[in-house]
Amino acid sequence: MKEKQLRIGMIGYGFMGRAHSNAYARVNQFFDLAYQPVLKAACARNVEAVQKFADNWGYESIESDWKALIARDDIDAIDICVPNNLHKEIALAAAAAGKIILCEKPLSMNAAEGIEMCEAVEKAGVANMVWYNYRRVPAVTLAKQIIDSGRLGKVFHYRANFLQDWTISEDVPQGGAALWRLDAAAAGSGVTGDLLAHCIDTAIWLNGGIRDVVAMTETFVKERVHADTGKAEPVGIDDACAFLCHFQNNSLGLFESTRYARGHKALYTFEINGEQGSLRWDLHDLHRLEFFDYNDEGATRGWRSIHVTDHGGEHPYMDHWWVPGLQIGYEHSFVHQVADFLKGLEDGKPAGPTFRDALETQRVCDAVLDSAKSREWKNVT
Amino acid sequence: MKEKQLRIGMIGYGFMGRAHSNAYARVNQFFDLAYQPVLKAACARNVEAVQKFADNWGYESIESDWKALIARDDIDAIDICVPNNLHKEIALAAAAAGKIILCEKPLSMNAAEGIEMCEAVEKAGVANMVWYNYRRVPAVTLAKQIIDSGRLGKVFHYRANFLQDWTISEDVPQGGAALWRLDAAAAGSGVTGDLLAHCIDTAIWLNGGIRDVVAMTETFVKERVHADTGKAEPVGIDDACAFLCHFQNNSLGLFESTRYARGHKALYTFEINGEQGSLRWDLHDLHRLEFFDYNDEGATRGWRSIHVTDHGGEHPYMDHWWVPGLQIGYEHSFVHQVADFLKGLEDGKPAGPTFRDALETQRVCDAVLDSAKSREWKNVT
Amino acid sequence: MKEKQLRIGMIGYGFMGRAHSNAYARVNQFFDLAYQPVLKAACARNVEAVQKFADNWGYESIESDWKALIARDDIDAIDICVPNNLHKEIALAAAAAGKIILCEKPLSMNAAEGIEMCEAVEKAGVANMVWYNYRRVPAVTLAKQIIDSGRLGKVFHYRANFLQDWTISEDVPQGGAALWRLDAAAAGSGVTGDLLAHCIDTAIWLNGGIRDVVAMTETFVKERVHADTGKAEPVGIDDACAFLCHFQNNSLGLFESTRYARGHKALYTFEINGEQGSLRWDLHDLHRLEFFDYNDEGATRGWRSIHVTDHGGEHPYMDHWWVPGLQIGYEHSFVHQVADFLKGLEDGKPAGPTFRDALETQRVCDAVLDSAKSREWKNVT
Amino acid sequence: MKEKQLRIGMIGYGFMGRAHSNAYARVNQFFDLAYQPVLKAACARNVEAVQKFADNWGYESIESDWKALIARDDIDAIDICVPNNLHKEIALAAAAAGKIILCEKPLSMNAAEGIEMCEAVEKAGVANMVWYNYRRVPAVTLAKQIIDSGRLGKVFHYRANFLQDWTISEDVPQGGAALWRLDAAAAGSGVTGDLLAHCIDTAIWLNGGIRDVVAMTETFVKERVHADTGKAEPVGIDDACAFLCHFQNNSLGLFESTRYARGHKALYTFEINGEQGSLRWDLHDLHRLEFFDYNDEGATRGWRSIHVTDHGGEHPYMDHWWVPGLQIGYEHSFVHQVADFLKGLEDGKPAGPTFRDALETQRVCDAVLDSAKSREWKNVT
Repeated sequence: MKEKQLRIGMIGYGFMGRAHSNAYARVNQFFDLAYQPVLKAACARNVEAVQKFADNWGYESIESDWKALIARDDIDAIDICVPNNLHKEIALAAAAAGKIILCEKPLSMNAAEGIEMCEAVEKAGVANMVWYNYRRVPAVTLAKQIIDSGRLGKVFHYRANFLQDWTISEDVPQGGAALWRLDAAAAGSGVTGDLLAHCIDTAIWLNGGIRDVVAMTETFVKERVHADTGKAEPVGIDDACAFLCHFQNNSLGLFESTRYARGHKALYTFEINGEQGSLRWDLHDLHRLEFFDYNDEGATRGWRSIHVTDHGGEHPYMDHWWVPGLQIGYEHSFVHQVADFLKGLEDGKPAGPTFRDALETQRVCDAVLDSAKSREWKNVT
Repeated sequence: MKEKQLRIGMIGYGFMGRAHSNAYARVNQFFDLAYQPVLKAACARNVEAVQKFADNWGYESIESDWKALIARDDIDAIDICVPNNLHKEIALAAAAAGKIILCEKPLSMNAAEGIEMCEAVEKAGVANMVWYNYRRVPAVTLAKQIIDSGRLGKVFHYRANFLQDWTISEDVPQGGAALWRLDAAAAGSGVTGDLLAHCIDTAIWLNGGIRDVVAMTETFVKERVHADTGKAEPVGIDDACAFLCHFQNNSLGLFESTRYARGHKALYTFEINGEQGSLRWDLHDLHRLEFFDYNDEGATRGWRSIHVTDHGGEHPYMDHWWVPGLQIGYEHSFVHQVADFLKGLEDGKPAGPTFRDALETQRVCDAVLDSAKSREWKNVT
Repeated sequence: MKEKQLRIGMIGYGFMGRAHSNAYARVNQFFDLAYQPVLKAACARNVEAVQKFADNWGYESIESDWKALIARDDIDAIDICVPNNLHKEIALAAAAAGKIILCEKPLSMNAAEGIEMCEAVEKAGVANMVWYNYRRVPAVTLAKQIIDSGRLGKVFHYRANFLQDWTISEDVPQGGAALWRLDAAAAGSGVTGDLLAHCIDTAIWLNGGIRDVVAMTETFVKERVHADTGKAEPVGIDDACAFLCHFQNNSLGLFESTRYARGHKALYTFEINGEQGSLRWDLHDLHRLEFFDYNDEGATRGWRSIHVTDHGGEHPYMDHWWVPGLQIGYEHSFVHQVADFLKGLEDGKPAGPTFRDALETQRVCDAVLDSAKSREWKNVT
Repeated sequence: MKEKQLRIGMIGYGFMGRAHSNAYARVNQFFDLAYQPVLKAACARNVEAVQKFADNWGYESIESDWKALIARDDIDAIDICVPNNLHKEIALAAAAAGKIILCEKPLSMNAAEGIEMCEAVEKAGVANMVWYNYRRVPAVTLAKQIIDSGRLGKVFHYRANFLQDWTISEDVPQGGAALWRLDAAAAGSGVTGDLLAHCIDTAIWLNGGIRDVVAMTETFVKERVHADTGKAEPVGIDDACAFLCHFQNNSLGLFESTRYARGHKALYTFEINGEQGSLRWDLHDLHRLEFFDYNDEGATRGWRSIHVTDHGGEHPYMDHWWVPGLQIGYEHSFVHQVADFLKGLEDGKPAGPTFRDALETQRVCDAVLDSAKSREWKNVT
């Protein structure tokens, strides 16, 4: 056991609860850190389910009321893994109680909520982070390194998409613990908040802020049975969303997300074209980064397929794992995020994206949804 | 020599003049047809250049004035391979003279011109075609066959882009014989008419008409030396253009083109997502079609990479060439288009895309350029 | 804590010690099993190093003498993660003490040793397994499922290679804790036992036994400084090895391994060609399996790229992890192997590959090395 | 018409007759050369078939007896496109008549025949070439340029294969005009002379001579109906062949060919691994070359996928065709070979591979077949 403990209170036990718990459990085995997360308590209304979850991951205790969890003295940090409509209330209470907060993305239902949340954590002076984990996929981190080195030169284009196909069937219901992402009341929006938010976070990180947008959304399946009522209810979320935009650096952006792209499971891709080079990445083969360097000699110029396990010793994450050629996966991005967060606590500069960083993504999402509704260009304000 | 001759009068001797001439020269060696093109005359103002071109390709004679060419009795068909701003005048004269017309794309500077051209050829009753050659790339033709078979089911998404990188340098001039594509006066528009027009033609062919659009254009390099004046002149074309749209079948479209995507030379790609399957194609590997069939058994479902040379005997073009595994290239699409056109003459139903088909693409281009200017959604009218 | 414990005594703390420890630590979080591994003790002569290792992974205690470890009553299973020349002695002692044995591959220095080891564990009646982990990479497991389903038909060809590039520099020393793989006295052979053994194990599993072989080996760097003596010593291992073979099912085999293939880090690939279909796999993109099904309709036949995360519910491992599209990595193969081993203990049929299975690979390795030396075809006996 | 004519007498009208004729017809339209091929006469016993062939390609006349063709004064060069067992007799007669000879590969049935042929053309002092066309696939030519530049450094490994699947069915007959490649009496061998000969020619060109070999062949289908007798006859050819070898530069070679690799149509691939870099090529995507340059900076090292159309101006063939991104295909390799041959005539140094060059490949094929028969290593003599 490390000297310094970060005692975690986890709220939620779904997909993200698993991903975060796994990260807490593994981080100290692969990263040399002063801090160590301790799985103190898991919390959810469904006592049986949360007990099973706690047993599986080694949480020492459970709570059925998140307010009780926040009230506990033996908890340092609250991890919010519940539907989006609950983020704000919990975050405000946790901040008021002086807890560190690690909040699942998107930060909030909208920018207005996000502002309240930022103000709360900043006023309370508590470390805070939002789980935009894709920044810490090693190939994405390498993209950031290359961009920061200036090797791309002036940027002209940024394009990203996030394509899935799991809601094509009209028989998929909405709502409930499993499918709250299809319920506008719980999720706020559909693919915009769930998937494009990831693309936007990465884009801002890599290419700076977004100035204005024009968007189009669509709901292909108009009614789905709701888990709460058992009846067909109108679907309020966007099944698909695409938008054009200008970045603050004057490059052009193109974003698209859908859950109706047959054959794609989680095809998050981005590409950035600069005067001197270009980069491409694809979540389906997340351990590779494609890089075109115009400064390579003419006859042998080509897109380089970089297997990020062959990192040459300069990568912040890869030498903590296995040997070149042996790939890591999705879950490792969370381990890296925890590692950076813990290192940040040690250094007094908790790693981002902070609530404030994530608010910027929220503003873009708001502008996108507004634009889709009004069929007008909207500034990101 | 075949019994029936199609005596060609070619206007222009540039890149497309070569591509078309090559197609005329080869078509009867690979396709069994009643008609045979005869390279009767090549025409251009630059006598020396056109004589060299004629010698190279075996044109029997030259002309320096296209009106003289059109006036000749020994010419059956006029092939228009000149800058866009000349298409209309030549086409109107050729139609009036009762000539068959094969016009390089885009049809015209705008839809208004295109309407005049359609009316002229229809009134004259002359066979007419526009060289949207990508329909006849074998993998694209296969895509059409699969779509027409119904195997994709209801379509949700269509996306296409055409990415190049050849005008990034500010030192590239505009205008003149070589670079008229950068001169708005000659080209009408930039990537919209040059590249997106291809994407739109294919899209309409594969997925039907487009209802409305919202677009964004950009001119990254604001001034370039003009070949005519030798001075820096404002650049009037769009260097990049992206647009969102709705198709008439209610699927969503996303299109992008640029000449500032470092690392891409002629990356024309499209993807179409339907309820039961998806297709993808990429001009950089034009002999392959990617196909995802949701009806494949679950555990072994995957994107199929179809090497179109392995056609199983049902393809209209592939069994005319070599054996499975041995790929053909870009130029063959023109041979196929000539083959179909000649077969159409024989059958009395000249193959498309006709002027009327190409006018539809022109209408979309107009709406795109209008939308980019006004920053508003525009209907395709 | 599960009812049934499997108390592990780990010998060694290197790369494989980490991989196995990670598997023990994670298996119960992702697989529902009666048994749970308990990290009881780690053992190595270097007390400081093994203490650090034990602290990192949570081993309760350490030992500096493997005989003491084997003598402990609170250990159920010995995990042998030491150089190959120590496998036999430890395994014989552990078997004699009635311990379960999980032995790193290759089983032994040669088949003669392997026979002794098989006889020892069989006589003692202890469960035993060799860590040929690649069988449990999900895409490889899927390959096995497809082959067993008969969809490939009669097999004609099997080819595999394992290409690396890490010993090209003459400055890499041999011997010692880190580089014993380059020291023939510790490793027995070079790429044959280290890398081809993996290829052979998978091949036998997928395609049955090997009848005869003809092989070629090479040692490109003839002398390397030895860590023990500090002096340049002759290199006794094979830097590269290739062999041809006949399988018992009359298919032809082709195998190659080297540590001198610049650009390849751990490029383990195999391909199998049958009358009705073919399969390909590549460790550098381990989450994909390529499948060609001749029974697909002609015009749309193509190699399918199966992203194994999209498993359709029939896969033994994939539904234990994340959601479709989100890939897992190298280390997970060890988790799967432990899961199967524990399930096997529960069911009374411990999962393979057993020592007896691994002996078959040893026999092939012996024949390969004999053939390379004698320049003659050799039967596998 | 160019000043200097090369009047061609073509013997044969099959697949290769088409490929060569196409090359003669096109070469002057794309390459600026002093010489121009003139299609003077086509020759075959089947008068009807050869007349149709001559009409299609524009041969001015036909002959039904190759001796009559060789006797004609108006023929400068004989192109031998007939089964292998006829090469020697025709070549000897053509050389005696002072004709230039362009002979389809492989040169001969065996090295003994090849020696006679070399001596004949050298004695007669006639220009001679063998159609190993793959040297002139632009990506392969680029590979040669990179190797010759020294960028790979010392070579360790060369591997190549040529995989097809067209003879898997037992119903495919042997012999006759169409399937003489399956008839040992006409072809000499199976995949060794037909496919591996290509791999060997390229290998020698890129990596130098081969010292010794050990090989394995297999005939999967033992009897096929013969076109001449209409009865099932034993199959004398090798359906598959694999061999290991040492090159004279001490690198290791691995070659394999088969017509039983389901899913592969003409998968000719090679890879070469040197100390400083590696190259890979694949006929199924022939316009790409993969290049790994170890001298790229560590963190961004990766295999470059070079689209050979983007040649940077230094390529001997690519700037004769279209623009970057627009690929050419299989048939163009023959155009390049004719272009080089004609340029060589102009310069007085006819381009290779000459008969003498091709004889070296024949010697390797002989050693391979001998080794397969005797199950022993054989020197290439």
